Amino acid sequence: MLESARILSRCDELALCSELPGGLTRVFLSPEQRAASELILGWMREARMSARVDAIGNVVGRYEGDRPGLPCLMLGSHLDTVRDAGRYDGMLGVVTAIECVHALAAAGKRLPFAIEVVGFGDEEGVRFGATLLGSRAIAGTFDAATLVAKDRDGVTLAEAMRSYGLEPERIGEAARRKDEVLAYAELHIEQGPVLEAEGLPVGVVTAINGFSRRRVTLKGEAGHSGTVPMGLRRDALTAAAECVLAVESVARSEPELVGTVGRIEASPGAINVIPGEVRFTLDVRAPHDSLRESALAQMLSRFESICAPRRVAVSVEVLQDHGVSVCADWLMAQMDRAVAAEGLRVRRLPSGAGHDGMAMHALTDIAMLFVRCKGGISHNPAESITEEDAAVGARVFARFIADFVPQKP
Amino acid sequence: MLESARILSRCDELALCSELPGGLTRVFLSPEQRAASELILGWMREARMSARVDAIGNVVGRYEGDRPGLPCLMLGSHLDTVRDAGRYDGMLGVVTAIECVHALAAAGKRLPFAIEVVGFGDEEGVRFGATLLGSRAIAGTFDAATLVAKDRDGVTLAEAMRSYGLEPERIGEAARRKDEVLAYAELHIEQGPVLEAEGLPVGVVTAINGFSRRRVTLKGEAGHSGTVPMGLRRDALTAAAECVLAVESVARSEPELVGTVGRIEASPGAINVIPGEVRFTLDVRAPHDSLRESALAQMLSRFESICAPRRVAVSVEVLQDHGVSVCADWLMAQMDRAVAAEGLRVRRLPSGAGHDGMAMHALTDIAMLFVRCKGGISHNPAESITEEDAAVGARVFARFIADFVPQKP
Repeated sequence: MLESARILSRCDELALCSELPGGLTRVFLSPEQRAASELILGWMREARMSARVDAIGNVVGRYEGDRPGLPCLMLGSHLDTVRDAGRYDGMLGVVTAIECVHALAAAGKRLPFAIEVVGFGDEEGVRFGATLLGSRAIAGTFDAATLVAKDRDGVTLAEAMRSYGLEPERIGEAARRKDEVLAYAELHIEQGPVLEAEGLPVGVVTAINGFSRRRVTLKGEAGHSGTVPMGLRRDALTAAAECVLAVESVARSEPELVGTVGRIEASPGAINVIPGEVRFTLDVRAPHDSLRESALAQMLSRFESICAPRRVAVSVEVLQDHGVSVCADWLMAQMDRAVAAEGLRVRRLPSGAGHDGMAMHALTDIAMLFVRCKGGISHNPAESITEEDAAVGARVFARFIADFVPQKP
Repeated sequence: MLESARILSRCDELALCSELPGGLTRVFLSPEQRAASELILGWMREARMSARVDAIGNVVGRYEGDRPGLPCLMLGSHLDTVRDAGRYDGMLGVVTAIECVHALAAAGKRLPFAIEVVGFGDEEGVRFGATLLGSRAIAGTFDAATLVAKDRDGVTLAEAMRSYGLEPERIGEAARRKDEVLAYAELHIEQGPVLEAEGLPVGVVTAINGFSRRRVTLKGEAGHSGTVPMGLRRDALTAAAECVLAVESVARSEPELVGTVGRIEASPGAINVIPGEVRFTLDVRAPHDSLRESALAQMLSRFESICAPRRVAVSVEVLQDHGVSVCADWLMAQMDRAVAAEGLRVRRLPSGAGHDGMAMHALTDIAMLFVRCKGGISHNPAESITEEDAAVGARVFARFIADFVPQKP
């Protein structure tokens, strides 16, 4: 029996492991993480899993299949949080996975594969500025250079590991072999408004979107707002306004594409001066790299054709590019069936936010199930889900696990 | 003897009183204003004027007439600048007026009226967002509500005055009586392209265009740039971009109309967050009040129709409205004669920029003489005039002063 009330009460209990009084902040390798890990280890053992902390501080529980030593279906999410976080981002996935195993164990069921549940120690990257440290270690893509990254108190990752009782030189032991893992599946709150808008409790993730980030500078000519006739102006802000709308228009041309100008500054920035220079940021995301790349190219080309007749110069600085992490078709098909079997409409949607699957993708095929959250709000204490949605999510996830068929090699 | 080289070198010297290294920014009640004021006080005294800083921080020099205590012809311009300014806007008028008095004093001449030269502390309104503070104080129209206006560091005008050594409660002492002032005349660079296009060094101003200024706030909803689909966004910046283009489009509909968005800020202002709020300024000017008023109404109505379908709320704060300030016929006639006496064609033209005369108009009749500037460029470090034009301007202005006949009461 899946107990949704227990899922929520465990999220509440984890939320008390916080360095922020009255709120939730829990960073990698902190005393709060140790406290949260102790709770998770206990719940895993209660669900008849063998449970341990691995070489980088992830909590790993294992429920054997119908004979010992079988390759596993790996489930998980992260236990660290952003600062002043909500209580479901990450934790809901770990607690729900344990609940699913708990139900199997209570029914005395063993499956033709093992199940492992991982509570990743670091996904958000708050403490050391590098994200996905827990899942990278398991995927075998941990970059040793990160060991010298410092937190805001000047403590390196290596030092923090030692204080936590871990040995940085043994970090490679956290890495798993490809033949040990059949697939990775994660349940997570959506952190966006799509499911709520469509009245659906869950959705099947198609991909963790890739993203491109640019800084754009437009240079025109400053001038007096009262004396320069409209026809003689080289206004960098009216040019930027057209660019912002071009980003929106290109991004609207494909339902799964998003494009955002989040920062803008106009110089000199006085009420009576025509802006001579404008700088703005661009963030473009899509579930297909080709879509993102062609959208970005279109946007940049639109910037040029907007600015040329305005005699405004465009320059573009590359900040970041990250390719898409696609969920596996065969896993999505099985997740779809689990959703449909609960009598729900199957809604596939990409994930705009990053997740541990981005790292796990290097080790094995990945799948994700999104659970509706209130107002799409996340990374915020106002993050909220209903017990009913937690229950639906757990039922779908449990069915996906029970009916899981590994891909033919 | 008028020394045009000294006029230019003094403008250069004032340009060094700047908070912007390698450029010119000097705002109201700043240490740079104090440094500029010290220079002006010295030059005034050198021209045998009594000189003082008045209750709001204007520099005021007085050259008595053929007997002490006569009403004055008031001359002046402003000493503050926009950000990253040119060195003639304002300063040329103050320095030329001092030069004219210097020549009178050197020749031992006294006129049948006193002359006062004012270097206004604030005309541009950069620091507190309210313009003409210096001339309003002298005209007796200073609005005490402005004392609580804050600069971008949260310092109020009242606090800034106290730090500067002034007492806000005594601001009324800066106001002059109508019977003390016969007229106000100002020499200023044109800041526009008309005189250059016609090959004329100077022109006689007919009126200062009216203007309307607004602060517009758009409220949408912030969200994760990766998770909120385009169709569900309430992006305040894309709405603002459409508004900026609407301002441009309405302003382009009439040749004498101009409209400018000079400042814009998007919040929270992170590369990965959809802007939930945008604030921008609006500046609309025209030579006829009815044209300006109808253009402004059109713009604000376009803002509403742009923002409504985007589910973005618009609020508009009135910052300033100022009708057209007409120059007095009797003063223009005397200025015309001074121009013609120098062998120049008389060209009358309106001013697209605002000037201290707009405030002085409440106290006395006003006149202005424009001096050609290169390319019509102003509010820009590229602002430039020739020494020859500075000399012509000074000669015409000196002649206007020497031949000035007060209006019969």
